[in-house]
Amino acid sequence: MKCHTDYLYFNTKKRHEFVNITDKVQEVIDSSGVQDGMALVSAMHITAGVYVNDAESGLIHDIESWLKEIAPTNKNYRHHMTGEDNGYAHLWNLIVGHQVTVPITKGTLDFGPWQQIYYAEFDGIRKKRVIVKVMGL
Amino acid sequence: MKCHTDYLYFNTKKRHEFVNITDKVQEVIDSSGVQDGMALVSAMHITAGVYVNDAESGLIHDIESWLKEIAPTNKNYRHHMTGEDNGYAHLWNLIVGHQVTVPITKGTLDFGPWQQIYYAEFDGIRKKRVIVKVMGL
Amino acid sequence: MKCHTDYLYFNTKKRHEFVNITDKVQEVIDSSGVQDGMALVSAMHITAGVYVNDAESGLIHDIESWLKEIAPTNKNYRHHMTGEDNGYAHLWNLIVGHQVTVPITKGTLDFGPWQQIYYAEFDGIRKKRVIVKVMGL
Repeated sequence: MKCHTDYLYFNTKKRHEFVNITDKVQEVIDSSGVQDGMALVSAMHITAGVYVNDAESGLIHDIESWLKEIAPTNKNYRHHMTGEDNGYAHLWNLIVGHQVTVPITKGTLDFGPWQQIYYAEFDGIRKKRVIVKVMGL
Repeated sequence: MKCHTDYLYFNTKKRHEFVNITDKVQEVIDSSGVQDGMALVSAMHITAGVYVNDAESGLIHDIESWLKEIAPTNKNYRHHMTGEDNGYAHLWNLIVGHQVTVPITKGTLDFGPWQQIYYAEFDGIRKKRVIVKVMGL
Repeated sequence: MKCHTDYLYFNTKKRHEFVNITDKVQEVIDSSGVQDGMALVSAMHITAGVYVNDAESGLIHDIESWLKEIAPTNKNYRHHMTGEDNGYAHLWNLIVGHQVTVPITKGTLDFGPWQQIYYAEFDGIRKKRVIVKVMGL
């Protein structure tokens, strides 16, 4: 059994940004030499998400609009009493989830035709990280 | 260490349908011979969910009603400019999640008394798949 | 490859309670002897969540308020026809998620500086359990 770890780094230009990391994750899988197993892809921050869905710009716009509706960016969150202004970003992290576990078969992401892995930055313009941990045979 | 993969197939009669797949997942675990480990149960589509909750028809009705409230089916999503009409189903996928990792102890799902694994179809009446990947000793 | 399982027990004093279990999970990892791998941390109940976010009391208050907004505790859920009164708690479980998989590197949770693991009790004042299953080298 092999276990291989790598990190992806981000420093987005906009506060909210959706980055397709599918190819980067596949590169880490390639480096691991794992043919059959799983990869954990997990944001190391509490104001970012990792999810699997479609690489379609309209949908990405819909996701951000919808997040703003159910957890508004401009609300007076109690968390802001600490001096922070990113209460919404913590809630978006809870909705979207900060991690996925993805299946690997024959050395490749065992995905359906439309599945893509996204890093969803909710409080960017600063250095952030995602851990990719691959386990398997 | 063993690694075993199988796929469950669905073609639901209704556009929205909740299918209890607990027994099917246990059958894959049985085939794997894994006594101690984990199984990743993951939809291979971006308009379906996999979750663990109660096998109670009233609750399943509540879940669907609630999803319709927080991400309506009849809204004019930007995603629909591609010709699709299933924007809501992508958002439901994000809320519910498209995968779970379930624990295996002594060859059996190590679950609490009410936990059941569901495949939640949000855009059915077509062929869909769930991957079940079992890893362990 | 090692596989090690332990259970955390809860019996909260309040119906809703957020318990930081990061140290408890690290203790299980220590017991496992795993240096490189993953731990599955999963509630064995359908009215509780497990998530990773900030240990900040204002934010925890925000999370509970927000859950009450998008899935009210006092709504007449169809699930209540079974005699239950915890329909909301099942929906909160779906939003927050009932499990996380956390990465282990050099025997330690490979986390960003603010990440903490929480057990979120949504229907407490009774005995509950979380399974921690550690796999790796």
